[in-house]
Amino acid sequence: MSSNTSWQDLAKAKKLRQQEAIPPAWKLASPPEYGALDVRTFPESPQCGLLTSREIEITNTTDVDALLSNLATAKWSSEEVTRAFYKRAIIAHQLVNCLTEIFVDRAIERAKELDKYLKETGKPYGPLHGLPISLKDQVRIKGLEATIGHTSWVGKYSEDDAVLTKVLYSCGAVPFVMTNVPQTLMWPETYNLIFGRTLNPANRTLTSGGSSGGEGALIAMKGSPLGVGSDIGGSIRYPSTFNGLYGFRPSSCRIPYSGAVNTLEGLDTAPSVLGPLSNSLSGVKAFLKAVIQSEPWVLDPLAIRKKWDEDAYRLADHGNGKQLCFGIMADDGNVIPHPPIQRALKVVEAALVAAGHKVVPWTPHKHQELYDNVAKIWMAAAAEDINAVLSPTGEPRLTTMAPEGSAGVADVGVTYARTLSAYELWQIQKARTGLREEYLAVWRDSVKYTGTGRPVDAIIAPVAPHAACPHGKTPISTYTAVWNSLNYACCAFPVTSVDPVQDRAQPRSEFLGEKDRRNWELYSPETFKNAPVGLQVVGQMLEEEAVLAMTEIVDEALRAYKTVTKAKL
Amino acid sequence: MSSNTSWQDLAKAKKLRQQEAIPPAWKLASPPEYGALDVRTFPESPQCGLLTSREIEITNTTDVDALLSNLATAKWSSEEVTRAFYKRAIIAHQLVNCLTEIFVDRAIERAKELDKYLKETGKPYGPLHGLPISLKDQVRIKGLEATIGHTSWVGKYSEDDAVLTKVLYSCGAVPFVMTNVPQTLMWPETYNLIFGRTLNPANRTLTSGGSSGGEGALIAMKGSPLGVGSDIGGSIRYPSTFNGLYGFRPSSCRIPYSGAVNTLEGLDTAPSVLGPLSNSLSGVKAFLKAVIQSEPWVLDPLAIRKKWDEDAYRLADHGNGKQLCFGIMADDGNVIPHPPIQRALKVVEAALVAAGHKVVPWTPHKHQELYDNVAKIWMAAAAEDINAVLSPTGEPRLTTMAPEGSAGVADVGVTYARTLSAYELWQIQKARTGLREEYLAVWRDSVKYTGTGRPVDAIIAPVAPHAACPHGKTPISTYTAVWNSLNYACCAFPVTSVDPVQDRAQPRSEFLGEKDRRNWELYSPETFKNAPVGLQVVGQMLEEEAVLAMTEIVDEALRAYKTVTKAKL
Repeated sequence: MSSNTSWQDLAKAKKLRQQEAIPPAWKLASPPEYGALDVRTFPESPQCGLLTSREIEITNTTDVDALLSNLATAKWSSEEVTRAFYKRAIIAHQLVNCLTEIFVDRAIERAKELDKYLKETGKPYGPLHGLPISLKDQVRIKGLEATIGHTSWVGKYSEDDAVLTKVLYSCGAVPFVMTNVPQTLMWPETYNLIFGRTLNPANRTLTSGGSSGGEGALIAMKGSPLGVGSDIGGSIRYPSTFNGLYGFRPSSCRIPYSGAVNTLEGLDTAPSVLGPLSNSLSGVKAFLKAVIQSEPWVLDPLAIRKKWDEDAYRLADHGNGKQLCFGIMADDGNVIPHPPIQRALKVVEAALVAAGHKVVPWTPHKHQELYDNVAKIWMAAAAEDINAVLSPTGEPRLTTMAPEGSAGVADVGVTYARTLSAYELWQIQKARTGLREEYLAVWRDSVKYTGTGRPVDAIIAPVAPHAACPHGKTPISTYTAVWNSLNYACCAFPVTSVDPVQDRAQPRSEFLGEKDRRNWELYSPETFKNAPVGLQVVGQMLEEEAVLAMTEIVDEALRAYKTVTKAKL
Repeated sequence: MSSNTSWQDLAKAKKLRQQEAIPPAWKLASPPEYGALDVRTFPESPQCGLLTSREIEITNTTDVDALLSNLATAKWSSEEVTRAFYKRAIIAHQLVNCLTEIFVDRAIERAKELDKYLKETGKPYGPLHGLPISLKDQVRIKGLEATIGHTSWVGKYSEDDAVLTKVLYSCGAVPFVMTNVPQTLMWPETYNLIFGRTLNPANRTLTSGGSSGGEGALIAMKGSPLGVGSDIGGSIRYPSTFNGLYGFRPSSCRIPYSGAVNTLEGLDTAPSVLGPLSNSLSGVKAFLKAVIQSEPWVLDPLAIRKKWDEDAYRLADHGNGKQLCFGIMADDGNVIPHPPIQRALKVVEAALVAAGHKVVPWTPHKHQELYDNVAKIWMAAAAEDINAVLSPTGEPRLTTMAPEGSAGVADVGVTYARTLSAYELWQIQKARTGLREEYLAVWRDSVKYTGTGRPVDAIIAPVAPHAACPHGKTPISTYTAVWNSLNYACCAFPVTSVDPVQDRAQPRSEFLGEKDRRNWELYSPETFKNAPVGLQVVGQMLEEEAVLAMTEIVDEALRAYKTVTKAKL
């Protein structure tokens, strides 16, 4: 690219290359009508007509364990599984605009090699043998671009794989697409000036969430069985919950980040973390276990040397999971969740009690302070950092995710204040340590009222006080970032979806504050029609194994409860 | 204290209270002559006359395992062990000025309680039952001061124990004295305006090192069997090596720091860490194992949830320790070590080969860059931070550790530059990640030449290019802080001491640079008479268990080598 190419031309050229990477045979002859909201099953429809019944069977296999088993036993070849998901991903992309990098031949070639390996050795290549995995646009693949939606990154071809990519290769996976993100990565929606906006497959008038919104939409379309997102303040959990998925935010440095593209580099005290999104908890587990068991600290100097802990997964520190006590957080003290979120909490509570577990209310402790603190740390030098990314091409900084001409929420969460001094930053970090000490003490003290002899085993909380919002309307809440501020391990899980009958708007005249009032105004069952609703299980720092196991328990309790009560969830 | 008390009066009053805390019966009637250099055995001498033969027997028991065994079996009561070490600590203090807080009755009371517990239950209270442990002036004890030598902290009585203090109590230990530090904690010597200067017991014209210099001197005097220091850039390893001790610098957040007094608070990206110093490796092991097994993450939100790993201690990742390959780092590329350090390296190399292990040369990779990087991070806001501590009383900032009127090394290592912006700090931290990635790759690539099928198992390197220097003369070197910059686990261990016959000055005319020349000029066998000489074993991040085990192997190899060769070491 010539250095005086405009950012518009750079964006156009890149987008064109993306279009050209789509095999003509996979282009939709007859897309759904423009106003079609829920496009999740369109790929299976006769109108689409691109997937064979076997490809539909493969891509509808949302249980990653089942996929892995079929791959390891050569019931399905990696080539056909990769091709099936690739086709569905490309179809998805034409419906919700979720992809960035498309490289069909390369992925199929890789899949063939794995098939050959299995045939020759009789053994799967690794724990993720043959599995197609989608990667957020940050997770570099050698020889491909990873622009994270910034025109100044167009044409920078990665000289090496990110460490996580290497690890996934070593586990036998097939990285096969890269997925869309918002400009700067610091938004809970997904829109940038190269690739445009990613839509929510359940209702295309709604956001797919962000910043891992491409992943969220792609996986909800069953265009990928397992994807990698990143989360600095909710960027895995927003798109997971907004798309009805499971999504895990590990504590910092449990999953290797080295070699990935990022914004706010050098922000080592409140870093983004990589983690999985999937339609199944087995997908989340397969990812976490395989990556941790690969000993990523051999390749990433920041990765914590902490082996996969099967005892922790068996809940050795939580009474072996026999009778858990969950703290249920109804709200964060700032914004009351919308009716469907309230219903989800009640359903989970009832399901857990029915399964023999205990629940107690969880009172949030200084959540606003914790959020404000971590936001100050992110923003300590964000303006300069983002400027350094945008200024080379003159690309404008987005101040809203709203579609052109429509009103949106401006500059949510991201206050580009003056750059702080290192001393100011230290004082904020010092205050955070104090807040973390307080929170741990509050948690520890819960031993007094759980009745299990242990403190609360985990907290169950909303991911946001709303489901997926209309484009440009997602306000920033403290519901996700508070746990980043504490560096706690969290797993988002799906519960239900917005039901106009059960989730009628609640008349209210008193509010906790302006944010609460605006959130209340945002709700109507019609606006959020079809929107998935999820919650998160929150454990303490570096409790990945236990949080996963407890989410499995919650998920199983929900499944049983739905069967028994025949509740429409 | 009235707010307009001068810093001098505050210092005087505090020092007076310290003097008054010494039991009159433990005051030396006949101290050694002013010019006496080596005072290590003075406490056992008739001239001292304060210790009974049983107290001498107890305090000469440098093997902490033996002490713990005698305590657990009630062969020795905690009361008599505590009293013996306390007496010797007070004697030591009168010779080398190593203490800050003195609280005899309280410690004896605690020891009696433990004796009572053992008598009543027949069981030791915990893994450190009855053991007196000294604490660097940072590690708060409820109700006592912890001024870290700053007059503005005089009269601030701790409202709670530091988490580590709580952990040690829960393990059955008897915290019994607190120990001296340099002003700001950012010096490799120990001198401040309240408590004055700590001297090296092997040669009082030399420094005890810093910043945990009080610990180093106290333990070398056998006034404490086990002490806690802190290390941000060498502050455990300098005083360990300068005093002939073992001293362990764990990776960040393995040992709980919460609730300890500190400077540069909020500096979360290159933090100080707490760790043990002892005359025995069994002391180091007892501390690390007991503290980690206490699950400190329950009390400290920053402590890494990583259990004591017995497999790692058995060197499962290092061929079970059968034939290790050590990288021997002769110098750091900037400063050639003095002759006794060179001899120590050769002795260790020969001892390891004799014990069946392998050694290869280790080429330092960008050590100066790594040092410069971490120093910039420390100093990003150090001037403002230190000013905030000193200005309330007008206490002057020391610019040298040299005694009044003598020339010293000014402002070593601590360049109080302007406060950086958060953006500048992020860029430095980003560069550090790159340096860490490079170093890990260099280490990984050593698999090509070790012949063990593994990369180098550990590096053996000097702690400094010199032994303990005359007061005020200790230059800053990259030998310790480079490992802090990489966050690697390190254990300092003693090898020998300066021997005028074997360690003659080397004529040199070519130098690696000005620092190298000045270091060379510093050396003469007479200047460094008696000075202990040690080295460090360096493993990777969070390899505490393996580094401990490998240091045990090195130590045992040295012991065997000394026996076989009858080498005077």
